[in-house]
Amino acid sequence: MDKNAANFAPLSPVEFLNRAATVYPEKTAVVHGLIKYTYREFQNRCHRLATALSGRGINSGDTVAIMAPNTPAMLEAHYGVPLIGAILNPLNIRLDAKTLAFTLEHGKAKVLLTDREYSNVIKGALARMTAPPLVIDIDDPAGKGGELIGDIDYEALLGEGSEHADFNEPKDEWQTISLLYTSGTTGNPKGVLYHHRGAYLNTLGNMATFGLDHRSVYLWTLPMFHCNGWTFTWAVTAACGTHVCLRDVEPALIYPIIADHGVTHMCGAPVVLTMLENAPDAEKVEFPQTVEIATGGAAPPSSVIEAMERAGFRVTHLYGLTETYGPSLSCAWQDQWSGLNLEGRSAKMARQGVRYLTLRHAMIADPDTMEELPSDGKTIGELMLAGNTVMKGYLKNPEATAKALRGGWFHTGDLAVRHPDGYFEIKDRAKDVIISGGENISSLEVEETLYRHPKILEAAVVAKPHPKWGETPCAFVTLRPQTTADAAEIIDYCRENMARFKVPRTVIFGPLPKTSTGKIQKFSLRERAKKPE
Amino acid sequence: MDKNAANFAPLSPVEFLNRAATVYPEKTAVVHGLIKYTYREFQNRCHRLATALSGRGINSGDTVAIMAPNTPAMLEAHYGVPLIGAILNPLNIRLDAKTLAFTLEHGKAKVLLTDREYSNVIKGALARMTAPPLVIDIDDPAGKGGELIGDIDYEALLGEGSEHADFNEPKDEWQTISLLYTSGTTGNPKGVLYHHRGAYLNTLGNMATFGLDHRSVYLWTLPMFHCNGWTFTWAVTAACGTHVCLRDVEPALIYPIIADHGVTHMCGAPVVLTMLENAPDAEKVEFPQTVEIATGGAAPPSSVIEAMERAGFRVTHLYGLTETYGPSLSCAWQDQWSGLNLEGRSAKMARQGVRYLTLRHAMIADPDTMEELPSDGKTIGELMLAGNTVMKGYLKNPEATAKALRGGWFHTGDLAVRHPDGYFEIKDRAKDVIISGGENISSLEVEETLYRHPKILEAAVVAKPHPKWGETPCAFVTLRPQTTADAAEIIDYCRENMARFKVPRTVIFGPLPKTSTGKIQKFSLRERAKKPE
Repeated sequence: MDKNAANFAPLSPVEFLNRAATVYPEKTAVVHGLIKYTYREFQNRCHRLATALSGRGINSGDTVAIMAPNTPAMLEAHYGVPLIGAILNPLNIRLDAKTLAFTLEHGKAKVLLTDREYSNVIKGALARMTAPPLVIDIDDPAGKGGELIGDIDYEALLGEGSEHADFNEPKDEWQTISLLYTSGTTGNPKGVLYHHRGAYLNTLGNMATFGLDHRSVYLWTLPMFHCNGWTFTWAVTAACGTHVCLRDVEPALIYPIIADHGVTHMCGAPVVLTMLENAPDAEKVEFPQTVEIATGGAAPPSSVIEAMERAGFRVTHLYGLTETYGPSLSCAWQDQWSGLNLEGRSAKMARQGVRYLTLRHAMIADPDTMEELPSDGKTIGELMLAGNTVMKGYLKNPEATAKALRGGWFHTGDLAVRHPDGYFEIKDRAKDVIISGGENISSLEVEETLYRHPKILEAAVVAKPHPKWGETPCAFVTLRPQTTADAAEIIDYCRENMARFKVPRTVIFGPLPKTSTGKIQKFSLRERAKKPE
Repeated sequence: MDKNAANFAPLSPVEFLNRAATVYPEKTAVVHGLIKYTYREFQNRCHRLATALSGRGINSGDTVAIMAPNTPAMLEAHYGVPLIGAILNPLNIRLDAKTLAFTLEHGKAKVLLTDREYSNVIKGALARMTAPPLVIDIDDPAGKGGELIGDIDYEALLGEGSEHADFNEPKDEWQTISLLYTSGTTGNPKGVLYHHRGAYLNTLGNMATFGLDHRSVYLWTLPMFHCNGWTFTWAVTAACGTHVCLRDVEPALIYPIIADHGVTHMCGAPVVLTMLENAPDAEKVEFPQTVEIATGGAAPPSSVIEAMERAGFRVTHLYGLTETYGPSLSCAWQDQWSGLNLEGRSAKMARQGVRYLTLRHAMIADPDTMEELPSDGKTIGELMLAGNTVMKGYLKNPEATAKALRGGWFHTGDLAVRHPDGYFEIKDRAKDVIISGGENISSLEVEETLYRHPKILEAAVVAKPHPKWGETPCAFVTLRPQTTADAAEIIDYCRENMARFKVPRTVIFGPLPKTSTGKIQKFSLRERAKKPE
């Protein structure tokens, strides 16, 4: 009973576009400002991109990089590039020229599609390269200008292609579809490799988790360069839903779009939720539907959950990493939680949850012995994941790959407990734990307490070196607008709400530095905490 | 970048049970009359079955047959048997002793689980065998009695097992999970083999197509022995929904269950819909929810769609075969159909539709040249399917396998057109076409006209040999209760509504013979049509 063309096809999320364009050719696939593409037009553009790249000598296994916000060109690259078996390498739009030059050279990009907005930094990156790629300008009509630095314009490139492209199916579904550099805090970025199989499965996992269907309207508040938009770049198409593009995550843009386009789903880091919550009333627009909003990267505080629910959103907490195609745990809803008060409910919802339908295994374990630890809500271990939606490995980095996947599990580097109900709760990044007088302090726990303070908008806690205790907690705090507080008030509040040794000794006020995906940059806070205040 | 345990796991639908039992351990997994099992209990029972079978010497690759209606034991077999790598062989409960003996011997069943209701026919089958399997009686408390003929009782067998079983994962996801004999109309039945990969993918396809989630309550009106219940045996568990078992498809049972258990989804042959529609008012119970009902095997007539909608059901038409894990086309809804009148809408909905999300290819082609035919709604070709949800092949039948899968496509044997909107519509089984005076007559088309006659409840049209024309259409008709009509009235009606050469020359009244899955047995009608009336 051998495999043959009748009963075996390599799994690939690229082919969902063909199905959508066949079943719903006239349906709106992509909206971007005044631009609307039907699924037929969207497919035609992807086919043009694929065949034009072929014509320019791009072959299966070659890398095509893209530097773009959430625009149609960025979406099209998710199909046009892998259609010919090439590898898509979405670049983090917040990176500096030096890091971009490193990744372009490390990933051997043969082509770079780049939005005008980033011409300056891209010019700097290209100047550092000995063999720069073919550069294609994306001149988005909704863009903000910027120099044209490319060899050809994106629309002109599409003009070189044909509306009819054959899908150069991967012979092996293990073939690489995407290359994503993690914004490492030290050393060079690592290139995470996804395969067609994993991307296909995570796509179906997203559909199952969020109930996407052909009526879904997905707003792109999550950067597509981030884990291929948690694979929603493919999932929305698989569902035959509508992609609504968005260059800038601004409440003044988001609220009217939600209302005008009937948005049903969106994703974003907690900072997106906080931003929506804290938008001035003048920017808020009411809408009749409930919008499913998935968030990850940090637990949404109960005050945020409450405010979002009042504003018409339903929040789901996810957990994942670049190495796991984005979401790999989700806080699956239990009907009995409806009966809890807000605080009880938020405490349940703030947990990272249970494994995704398409992830195979998750556990907390001692990383040395790999022994699974009890689900008692107390014992802390490293969160380990395994299954088809774990990366192939890091490009040209066998050591880091072996270390990350040692013992048959992906080592997340996150410290978690597992509750008796089976739900995981991250307690800290392994490197974020504060060790004070030999006692472990979870920076997350201190942050959660700080977030409950009525005047605090955002908070982050890191270790500050201390001559006697080794380390002590140092809190960085942003206050809500029109409020004032001093360090003593914050410290007093902490004393009333946590064990004495966990109370921050230092409180520093001001805005918090964030990564391009909205995560607070603890490494930079750690540097600041090292300096005497 | 090699596969390893961290980033590769063979796809298998069996493991969805473990996830459901972890995430929703206290949720009702299975309802059967007064019996309710939570997901924890359901998993425990499946584990007991798996380990007890192991203890009885059943190994990976061995076949375990089951003869049972839609009961918990039947569901448990869908997990307990493949958990240890064994092959599940669900038997068609309507078969005769001789055919059953053939399939048990052909499939080399080592164990037979059998519901008391079928003791007579099973005794007959076992008597014909030289090496009968270990026989286990399923003594369902909701059953109808019947002799105990086994070596051990099912519950006693579970008592031999343990609540903790390790999943003996297939090393290769291509490993066989299930063996299903097609009820061939001539010759011996053919044993269709499913693998873990295909079953996993069709499960996700069902979830996506029907939006199953943890609030779904699925009523088992479709026999589980039929393509593993179209793989809903696994899909409902993957969604963490509730299975509601049902021994007998009777409206007097179905309506109260829909109301009492809040059923959201069910499947069945058109005869199930007709039965529900035509139930006496005393048996009908109103319910507040809309029930999604998927039907396949024949197009639902517009009168049935209308009556079902009025009664609170939403009908979706599916198409599939045993060889394709059940559903492989579905009539995906287009929002603009809402604006059509009933006749227009029914005409759209009666089509078999577009490929399932998890099927890779579908086309109509000339079976000799394998050339794809145009989507003009007129040109008739053979429907061809390809992808991961096409069977491995027929057990020990390389000739039939090669014939069915020749040219890299599964040849369905069904004749279809493809409409300009890409939707497929079956015109006939290849062998059901009537050739009269050299002209092809679609028996389905004649049947559709007959179904629109207000007095006709059911109709089937087959070829009757004719000395001059070769063949002529012969109609078999069941009238609605309390109506009368004669052949002349029916023929007159046909003359007004179709081309002259398509009008049946003969009309025979009476009940129609059906297969166990509700399909009209055209081969037996063909035999009758051969006789002079």
